[in-house]
Amino acid sequence: MGRAGFRIGGSETSVYGRREMATSGDRQQVEQWDVFEVVQEVQAEGNPFTDIEFGARFLYKHRAVPVDGFYDGDGVFRVRFMPDVPGRWRYETWSDCAELDGVAGEFVCTEAPEGNHGPVRVADGFHFRYADGTPYYQVGTTCYAWAHQGDELEEQTLETLSEAPFNKLRMCVFPKRYRYSRNEPEHYPFEGNREEGWDFTRFNPAFWRHFETRVSQLRDLGIEADLILFHPYDGGHWGFDRMPAEADDRYLRYAVARLAAYRNVWWSMANEWDFMGEKEDGDWDRYFRIVREEDPYQHLRGIHNGRRWYDHGKPWVTHCSVQAGTDDVGKWRRQYGKPVVVDETLYEGTISEPWGNITAEEMVRRFWVGLTHGGYVGHGETYLHPDDILWWSKGGVLHGESPERIAFMRRIMEGGPERGFDPVPWWRSWKAHAVGKGDDYILLYWGVRQPGEMTLELPARYRADVIDTWEMTITPVEGVLEGEVTVPLPGRPYIALRLRKEQ
Amino acid sequence: MGRAGFRIGGSETSVYGRREMATSGDRQQVEQWDVFEVVQEVQAEGNPFTDIEFGARFLYKHRAVPVDGFYDGDGVFRVRFMPDVPGRWRYETWSDCAELDGVAGEFVCTEAPEGNHGPVRVADGFHFRYADGTPYYQVGTTCYAWAHQGDELEEQTLETLSEAPFNKLRMCVFPKRYRYSRNEPEHYPFEGNREEGWDFTRFNPAFWRHFETRVSQLRDLGIEADLILFHPYDGGHWGFDRMPAEADDRYLRYAVARLAAYRNVWWSMANEWDFMGEKEDGDWDRYFRIVREEDPYQHLRGIHNGRRWYDHGKPWVTHCSVQAGTDDVGKWRRQYGKPVVVDETLYEGTISEPWGNITAEEMVRRFWVGLTHGGYVGHGETYLHPDDILWWSKGGVLHGESPERIAFMRRIMEGGPERGFDPVPWWRSWKAHAVGKGDDYILLYWGVRQPGEMTLELPARYRADVIDTWEMTITPVEGVLEGEVTVPLPGRPYIALRLRKEQ
Repeated sequence: MGRAGFRIGGSETSVYGRREMATSGDRQQVEQWDVFEVVQEVQAEGNPFTDIEFGARFLYKHRAVPVDGFYDGDGVFRVRFMPDVPGRWRYETWSDCAELDGVAGEFVCTEAPEGNHGPVRVADGFHFRYADGTPYYQVGTTCYAWAHQGDELEEQTLETLSEAPFNKLRMCVFPKRYRYSRNEPEHYPFEGNREEGWDFTRFNPAFWRHFETRVSQLRDLGIEADLILFHPYDGGHWGFDRMPAEADDRYLRYAVARLAAYRNVWWSMANEWDFMGEKEDGDWDRYFRIVREEDPYQHLRGIHNGRRWYDHGKPWVTHCSVQAGTDDVGKWRRQYGKPVVVDETLYEGTISEPWGNITAEEMVRRFWVGLTHGGYVGHGETYLHPDDILWWSKGGVLHGESPERIAFMRRIMEGGPERGFDPVPWWRSWKAHAVGKGDDYILLYWGVRQPGEMTLELPARYRADVIDTWEMTITPVEGVLEGEVTVPLPGRPYIALRLRKEQ
Repeated sequence: MGRAGFRIGGSETSVYGRREMATSGDRQQVEQWDVFEVVQEVQAEGNPFTDIEFGARFLYKHRAVPVDGFYDGDGVFRVRFMPDVPGRWRYETWSDCAELDGVAGEFVCTEAPEGNHGPVRVADGFHFRYADGTPYYQVGTTCYAWAHQGDELEEQTLETLSEAPFNKLRMCVFPKRYRYSRNEPEHYPFEGNREEGWDFTRFNPAFWRHFETRVSQLRDLGIEADLILFHPYDGGHWGFDRMPAEADDRYLRYAVARLAAYRNVWWSMANEWDFMGEKEDGDWDRYFRIVREEDPYQHLRGIHNGRRWYDHGKPWVTHCSVQAGTDDVGKWRRQYGKPVVVDETLYEGTISEPWGNITAEEMVRRFWVGLTHGGYVGHGETYLHPDDILWWSKGGVLHGESPERIAFMRRIMEGGPERGFDPVPWWRSWKAHAVGKGDDYILLYWGVRQPGEMTLELPARYRADVIDTWEMTITPVEGVLEGEVTVPLPGRPYIALRLRKEQ
């Protein structure tokens, strides 16, 4: 029998400076929604990635949660678990290798401390909450290949994110090869190399340890990691976009086994799934099925379109992850009955590609239009850079003018209806986008239009604020508004009006 | 027999200070495309508007042009004629009133002097030229009711137009009643009044003399008058939007008889024709037929939509007069095979109506998008005003920032391909709107996008200019461009690039 152990608190320990825990005899603690890890070592021969099955059942009172483990190289097997209930948990491993089978232990799960709200779930039909009930108002950004840029740039990205308004980051598991992103990563997900070929049956633990460190660092910044499992920006250069089906499936199971215990993980089956010409439509259903079966915590699952949309109505899709303008968010809410996240709505920047050169004004407008149709939006930035360090691909620092306005908008969201913003019937809604919560709270937005006044018919008594979403000012309208009333507006674009019912 | 006479040169004589010409024995001169008028007086009884037919045949060599006359009150009948060929012309009146019948005379038509190019015609499929072959690049604006505001404001409007970039004005024949436009006009087109009713069989000459003076003053400023014959902004207040069919038809014949000899006239059957709920679809075909039959000069004919489009493919429609955004101009060119004029594409201003509060930037952008799809665009302005004097309705002065940019664009048009701008095949046209003339001249426009560079594949050697359509600057790109070349761009919105082939 190998040496048994466990590891806890992925948030405190770097995979580079790993503490191995004492034997299972110790009564260990892990906080709720944090990572508890059972570690087993064994003299492994052959290919332990494929030859040996290993996992554990985690037991809490009457519940048993089966969780697949994974081989981490050097004879080490691990199974990671994210307990969701405080109290005493027990576990027992299983394996077709006798030395790894039947190892039992227990640990105490402690109440989540402040700042740990658990994983994000769909709530109230079109919105999100953390597992502890705290509302989560998605404000995303994209750095596809940031985790493949080496420590210096990656740490700068984390530093930038710590000051930025974003609470979700879209990022690729596989490295990315595309215009402005031609460098090779330090690590590759599989054993082998591009010239002589990859062994898709053997994962490269160094790659994965590095990657999951980055995921855990995002978690510690309060940022959800929307992990893009497949993408077309490979074009056969490495060939991770065209692996055999059994390699795809093995990869998915391995990724889920390693990463699902991080509470900030979301699964994105692909970026621009329909641009992956080597795959069949049915493959995507299978990928969803595998992730759904493997993930004990049922993290959010989406799939991001190029031109053609996957059917977000399928039951395993938890929310719409959309590349599009934000004007039709209301339509998609009605069509799919799920939260709508416009993850990609063109990028603020100056590159020549037409999806990468909108102004900051337009980026902020798209955020507000998405919000005022009851959806959520994602940011991205593509300013030309002498060394090709574009935020959208590599991270680094932000150059644009939209993030501070997005931060301003996030504060408005956080001060709005707790469950989020839903379209409200509005008496003259043809003049504005309108969301809120019934009659209690109404947020109107005029985008590029610049009315100098607006006549409203109000069903109750309201306090109003004129919000300049670009200048980031909130100016109370004098008095209490009631009945048919003409509200003066600044006659500039990017103005919103917030109406809150007098209690 | 009554006293016969004629009048010439509508451009020099005010209808208020009319000179009656000497008898037909004098050999009179009129310049090409100007107004020659035969005047007959008679002791009229009954209702001369309906009881007496009057007209004349104008004869040039083998040609005979029959032209209907009209009764102008006080026993005066007139027939107006716009000769299109220099030389000796003869005429002979006809009438079912013996005293008005068979009056003959002649005049000499002189070559048009500089500045008089004749009426505007469709040319080269999608463009316009004056009758003398000079290109006409339509740059429109709208002052629906400017000619019903009294002399002071009307003269201010003319003063404004004399400095403005516009060479076409859309204006209503009938007075307009709508928000911001509640005042009664000084004159009405018919005898009678609102309270006791109108006599649709008797026109009010004072109204028409005033109106045609304004038309002639526009002509003298080089501005085409796009006369809107019907409109819904009456709502039954006067009832000119719901006259009996015979009154409609009589009105059209009278309007054409009075106005067609003014070379700057265009006929617009209606503004927002589909919002005129009292009319049948078939009525519009009939109106077109009447105007087409009555107008000896075949001035341009269009009809302007609200939501529903009239079929601009019908043969009597000379050009598409559109209310819409300008992005689809290329599609309508292909669909109808006619010039596309987006006469109304929202208005620069601050009123609460969503069609009346775009920014100057957006107005200018729409002009450039229309241009770079091979079409023509119209301006309008609706800034809130303490006395409700909004340019779009009443004229007055311009408050906005778009006109000087439109003037700048007009200069670019005038320096472009003589026949106008047509879509050009472009190797990477997905990155820009592209028009020009074959390979010789290419104009690219990026609208709100702000690329910092653009890689082009050029089929020849070109000189290039970066045009900032908002800042109104033209900056030559250094050197001669050839082959695949990356052109630096400012990374700001509203940039165009002009490429002219090196000879």
